[in-house]
Amino acid sequence: MTATEHVPRQSLTAAELQEVDRYWRAANYLSVGQIYLMDNPLLREPLAPRHVKPRLLGHWGTTPGLAFVYAHLNHQVRRRDTEMMWIVGPGHGGPAAVATAWLDGVYSEVYPDVGRDADGMRTLFRQFSFPGGVPSHAAPETPGSVHEGGELGYALAHAFGAAFDNPDLVVAAVVGDGEAETGALAGSWQSVRFLNPVRDGAVLPILHLNGYKIAGPTVPARIPEEDLLAQLRGHGYAPHVVAGDDPDTVHQAMAGALASCLERIDTIRFRARHGGSGVENLRWPMVVLRTPKGWTGPATVDGQPVENTWRSHQVPLAAVRENPEHLRLLEEWLRSYRPWELFDEDGAPRPETTAVVPRPGRRISGSPHANGGLLLRSLRLPDPRDHAVEVPRPGTEKAEATRVLGGYLRDVVAANPHNFRIMGPDETQSNRLGAVFEATDRAWTAARLPVDRQLSPDGRVMEVLNEQLCQGWLEGYLLTGRHGLFNSYEAFIHIVDSMVNQHAKWLKVSRGLSWRRPVASLNYLLSSHVWRQDHNGFSHQDPGFVDHVVNKKPEIVRVYLPPDSNTLLSVMDHCLRSRDYVNVVIAGKQPQLSYLPADAAAAHCARGAGVWEWAGSEDGAEPDVVLACAGDVPTLETLAAADLLRRHLPELRVRVVNVVDLMRLSNEGEHPHAMTDREYDTLFTRDRPVVFAFHGYPWLIHRLTYRRAGHDNLHVRGYREEGTTTTPFDMVMLNDLDRFHLVMDVVDRVPGLGVRAAGLRQHMMDERLRCRAHTREYGEDPPDIRDWVWEY
Amino acid sequence: MTATEHVPRQSLTAAELQEVDRYWRAANYLSVGQIYLMDNPLLREPLAPRHVKPRLLGHWGTTPGLAFVYAHLNHQVRRRDTEMMWIVGPGHGGPAAVATAWLDGVYSEVYPDVGRDADGMRTLFRQFSFPGGVPSHAAPETPGSVHEGGELGYALAHAFGAAFDNPDLVVAAVVGDGEAETGALAGSWQSVRFLNPVRDGAVLPILHLNGYKIAGPTVPARIPEEDLLAQLRGHGYAPHVVAGDDPDTVHQAMAGALASCLERIDTIRFRARHGGSGVENLRWPMVVLRTPKGWTGPATVDGQPVENTWRSHQVPLAAVRENPEHLRLLEEWLRSYRPWELFDEDGAPRPETTAVVPRPGRRISGSPHANGGLLLRSLRLPDPRDHAVEVPRPGTEKAEATRVLGGYLRDVVAANPHNFRIMGPDETQSNRLGAVFEATDRAWTAARLPVDRQLSPDGRVMEVLNEQLCQGWLEGYLLTGRHGLFNSYEAFIHIVDSMVNQHAKWLKVSRGLSWRRPVASLNYLLSSHVWRQDHNGFSHQDPGFVDHVVNKKPEIVRVYLPPDSNTLLSVMDHCLRSRDYVNVVIAGKQPQLSYLPADAAAAHCARGAGVWEWAGSEDGAEPDVVLACAGDVPTLETLAAADLLRRHLPELRVRVVNVVDLMRLSNEGEHPHAMTDREYDTLFTRDRPVVFAFHGYPWLIHRLTYRRAGHDNLHVRGYREEGTTTTPFDMVMLNDLDRFHLVMDVVDRVPGLGVRAAGLRQHMMDERLRCRAHTREYGEDPPDIRDWVWEY
Repeated sequence: MTATEHVPRQSLTAAELQEVDRYWRAANYLSVGQIYLMDNPLLREPLAPRHVKPRLLGHWGTTPGLAFVYAHLNHQVRRRDTEMMWIVGPGHGGPAAVATAWLDGVYSEVYPDVGRDADGMRTLFRQFSFPGGVPSHAAPETPGSVHEGGELGYALAHAFGAAFDNPDLVVAAVVGDGEAETGALAGSWQSVRFLNPVRDGAVLPILHLNGYKIAGPTVPARIPEEDLLAQLRGHGYAPHVVAGDDPDTVHQAMAGALASCLERIDTIRFRARHGGSGVENLRWPMVVLRTPKGWTGPATVDGQPVENTWRSHQVPLAAVRENPEHLRLLEEWLRSYRPWELFDEDGAPRPETTAVVPRPGRRISGSPHANGGLLLRSLRLPDPRDHAVEVPRPGTEKAEATRVLGGYLRDVVAANPHNFRIMGPDETQSNRLGAVFEATDRAWTAARLPVDRQLSPDGRVMEVLNEQLCQGWLEGYLLTGRHGLFNSYEAFIHIVDSMVNQHAKWLKVSRGLSWRRPVASLNYLLSSHVWRQDHNGFSHQDPGFVDHVVNKKPEIVRVYLPPDSNTLLSVMDHCLRSRDYVNVVIAGKQPQLSYLPADAAAAHCARGAGVWEWAGSEDGAEPDVVLACAGDVPTLETLAAADLLRRHLPELRVRVVNVVDLMRLSNEGEHPHAMTDREYDTLFTRDRPVVFAFHGYPWLIHRLTYRRAGHDNLHVRGYREEGTTTTPFDMVMLNDLDRFHLVMDVVDRVPGLGVRAAGLRQHMMDERLRCRAHTREYGEDPPDIRDWVWEY
Repeated sequence: MTATEHVPRQSLTAAELQEVDRYWRAANYLSVGQIYLMDNPLLREPLAPRHVKPRLLGHWGTTPGLAFVYAHLNHQVRRRDTEMMWIVGPGHGGPAAVATAWLDGVYSEVYPDVGRDADGMRTLFRQFSFPGGVPSHAAPETPGSVHEGGELGYALAHAFGAAFDNPDLVVAAVVGDGEAETGALAGSWQSVRFLNPVRDGAVLPILHLNGYKIAGPTVPARIPEEDLLAQLRGHGYAPHVVAGDDPDTVHQAMAGALASCLERIDTIRFRARHGGSGVENLRWPMVVLRTPKGWTGPATVDGQPVENTWRSHQVPLAAVRENPEHLRLLEEWLRSYRPWELFDEDGAPRPETTAVVPRPGRRISGSPHANGGLLLRSLRLPDPRDHAVEVPRPGTEKAEATRVLGGYLRDVVAANPHNFRIMGPDETQSNRLGAVFEATDRAWTAARLPVDRQLSPDGRVMEVLNEQLCQGWLEGYLLTGRHGLFNSYEAFIHIVDSMVNQHAKWLKVSRGLSWRRPVASLNYLLSSHVWRQDHNGFSHQDPGFVDHVVNKKPEIVRVYLPPDSNTLLSVMDHCLRSRDYVNVVIAGKQPQLSYLPADAAAAHCARGAGVWEWAGSEDGAEPDVVLACAGDVPTLETLAAADLLRRHLPELRVRVVNVVDLMRLSNEGEHPHAMTDREYDTLFTRDRPVVFAFHGYPWLIHRLTYRRAGHDNLHVRGYREEGTTTTPFDMVMLNDLDRFHLVMDVVDRVPGLGVRAAGLRQHMMDERLRCRAHTREYGEDPPDIRDWVWEY
């Protein structure tokens, strides 16, 4: 194996080496104990099968490497008084994260029932991966973690998110070599081109090559080392290689490398902040750590090599209860750490064992950044009414909702210069939020050219054509106590489906932990939505992100479909004030009718759903039919349908219901926002036909409402996976969501309309044909469609 | 800008340069025409507003670069008679793909109504991004494409998938610099470590740096060029830089670079195939092409620089109909290509314009690989009965379903050594498909060590910890006419949600194109599913991929939940024979009861759903209650509940229905597999309580069945987003899917059961408490739960 790239500037004294190694041994001992033991934690009696858990769950392979890294981070923090947090990319090495937090004393402060004594150690061991205990990963339950690491790939993105706007922080991010194969991680290295050393903290990546995944080698470990280093240099890093399997040698090399990295970070910061040097295309330090998988574990089991192979990935000794040889090997392994040197008579870590632990305010596992709610400050928010458009009469004038929102967001950015960011894949301007660039720029620390606009190291808009990175950055930013907004195409936000799963799960578990303080919600603004991807075509048309999100815990999920500018303002204002949610807001960017003045919009959004009397023709009596709508384009089509009905069937009593807060529809009791059945019936009736024009896939409405009394009378139109490059109105026609088809749906469902209705149905079909013919002839929608407004 | 890294070995003669440049100009002219014109295609009269489309849709920025690349690929193919296809990463440059296919003559062969004459050109222009016409991207409608490119990031993965097992093929893959920011693309470079030059074709990446995305610069274009090249070298490539804005200079450099790359590919192949040199960590050639965005377009519009800035991304002249200056600029721009030199009196390309086009069998846009169904050969499949487990009596003996399947797949691999691959993120062994390694290895062309097992350049199992890459490779492989299987964790398959969207959309559109021949289905095997992620915990528990997939067109989507080994065999056999579907198969890997002998399993799977008489107690009469189940774990719990009911309420008439083919449940008419209402009622009754134990989120069953007569009586249990690291039975208890709760659900829903039922309900609650207490005490499930079998 190779020597470090730079000569270590500092080596450990013999005493320091002892300190670090002792802490590492203790963490390893506690890790093996967690995986295997339910009793006899200090090995005060010979190990017996009954001391061993019946089901052996956990991942040993990565654990000693993590513990090694942590011991060394401790040493550096103690020496330099660095403010540091860490991210455990291979989060399945949970035992290391738990063990070190316990050694630091943090674990027992958070969980007083797990004390730093023999009893506590027994509990610590027993609870791990045990029913009623703690998960096997670096989960929300783990102090010091903002990163579960179960789904691999997000370590660096989370680390950078944590570092943004935390100028004094160093985020050490351990990246596994399996993880390094993921696309998310591969795309995260470029984060450094967006990090500004003047206002942001630093990320110290530690790429841990232990060589193997579950069942085979990893790519980064098996390409020529020169290739790997070239990649990392190419990404803007100066890698320090630390490699070996002899602990003392690797201790020295690691200490030297880390000291060198932290010095380099200090230098970069100092020069950028005081030296006036540029911040473009800087080269940041990092470590490549090459140590054996399952280091210090059993070398050979049942005649097969285990240490330094994939066989150490999970539980190296699998049959300890049944196989006396495995039991013997386990005891030998545990005793190899010399626990009697590490823990005192009571089972507490001896002072020498924790000598390397930093002072209480600097303990890594106790970082307040890893419990971001502690640091959260509410945003200073402008009054949405100051940004509202005038609406003299509903449905008569047009505005671009996201452009209006842009003005509001500009003021949010200006009023919160240190704790609010907007993320997105290069669409802030095209999504018409461009007003924010009056207050800030795009963040950028690669090279700039004179032609560039709205681009600077100080920008608070983060644009990278990488939804995973946007999401990962924002998660890291939120979980460390800040606020943000992710704006993206509706179709392509599916790229982060799996990430939002993980975040929603994190929030759900965190809510059950009293010591975890609420964090700001994860806010999505999905513009360029399915109905206005007529220009990009079928591949850009997918409204299914909502379907995905509503599978998560109802306590976490909120979905809003504001139909116009003022409702969008009101919804966003609400979302930016909220905590611990995933808020999905879907709103178009095209010019569209405004319906509600500011106050009415706020009231409508607070109710979440309501009757629009001005658009209906109920006349005080029960309606004959309810036209319901959710989403801007469906709302427009619904109103146009209501207009057609009042002209052609003036005697029909039509109610128009608009839904902003989708979860209001949920069956009673299934979501905190769900209406009671009584409220639902009052709005939708129990027995009248309801024609519901929905923004997304139509069956989502059925899935939400199947227990409602009127469900059998509910007929939903929405996106049915039909589309291409065409006109906006052709898009709704292709999916039978157009005004004419909605009228046909009414005619088909309201009984007793007689012959006039049949004529109207035919007329509507003719109208569809007329529009289709016009579109194909002229390449755009008929003017009467494009320019339709509500007439009084 | 920098010169090429290697001195070009071949430059163009003056005549060759003319040829290439003329083709390029023609393609550019035809591209601009597509974006702007609906008439006057040859500019035979002065350009007038009425010749211009009312809505200007399309992306100019990347288009001239794509046309440039294609012209040069033509030249090389013609010179060397290379078998080549191309992948257009920036697929929004659709005009270039369409224009070149038309110039090659392929377009008119596929679409005879778009001839190579003035009329055809008019149609070609008009149809682009026009209602009733063709999409703006390199869509299925585009000859020569297997890659829509709307969602960026998959160009390289698709290219490698196409190259695998196509030893004579070179796949030129244009990667945009915006696209290069995505995680999917960043993770795709490593594909070269899995490519075997002996049996596989070559991928020639062309990283096109035009510098800008929609609204700002790209990272790869703004980092030091040495950094970019270091990255690419580190990934295993030898990049040739071609840069400039003077066409003649860049033509010469590009021709030299491509010739050098193709020679290098020939050399690598020759040495690997005949020279006996190693295939490990080879360095493959590639091109970095740095040319202006919107090259040859308007330099300045309205006083703003456009060429070589982000402003040329879409439509550089936006107001042509209204603004005479824009109209003038457009005409000037179009005439700058000198169309009178390029096209003859009839509007056909002059012979000199297409002199560079290869012979018919080698035209890139006509590659049969880009219409893979043409090349598809059915798999030779073993008889699933030869792999079936013995089932003397249902529900009495256990097997691991995926292990049984492994034997079958081993034989599939052995019988189809050139057109079948298994992809997965390092889980083939852990998902217990390890028997395939008796027939093959994992593919690997990075370094190998003596400790390695089942690893070779010839392996047919593709393992990389990157679901996007697995998916992208497989898509490329299938779309070029081969077969495959993707096995993965159920929770993390969400990582490819957006990719499966795109593939399903591709299939849906392809089905409507008679010239596109059916391709093999995309088959997922989701093992390590939600109910058996008790060891990894909450982050690994998500059954929502099915919810996601069923939003796609019903014609494309199939979902199977085989409850045991023999049904899994039958389902997989069916999937591997099918065409043009996305098949999702969910099956556990743990030991579980077998229910059906081979023939009965095949019959049950063919029906898709059926009554299991042996488990019920109907006694010929109508049942009092139906216990329905879908999925292996829910089936087990349902049978155990039926067992409890027959013991405790022997007079209750219970029917047990098992569902394998989920889409059979769909409301009549909504899916090709949907039962008729009559069939549904026969199985589930119209009015009896149905307690349905479902593998996934329970509301999916409601979403599928809400129109069924018995829907109001349907009560579904499934995953409710509750879980942690615990035992398997605790997992089902946490979600109320356990046998005891199912019995409680029956008791609560069947009227008139009287006092005995109340006692049974209490007993069931006690049983749950007993199990919970046991679990928390001993860390494993009670033996009577673990070992439960059906007793006769």
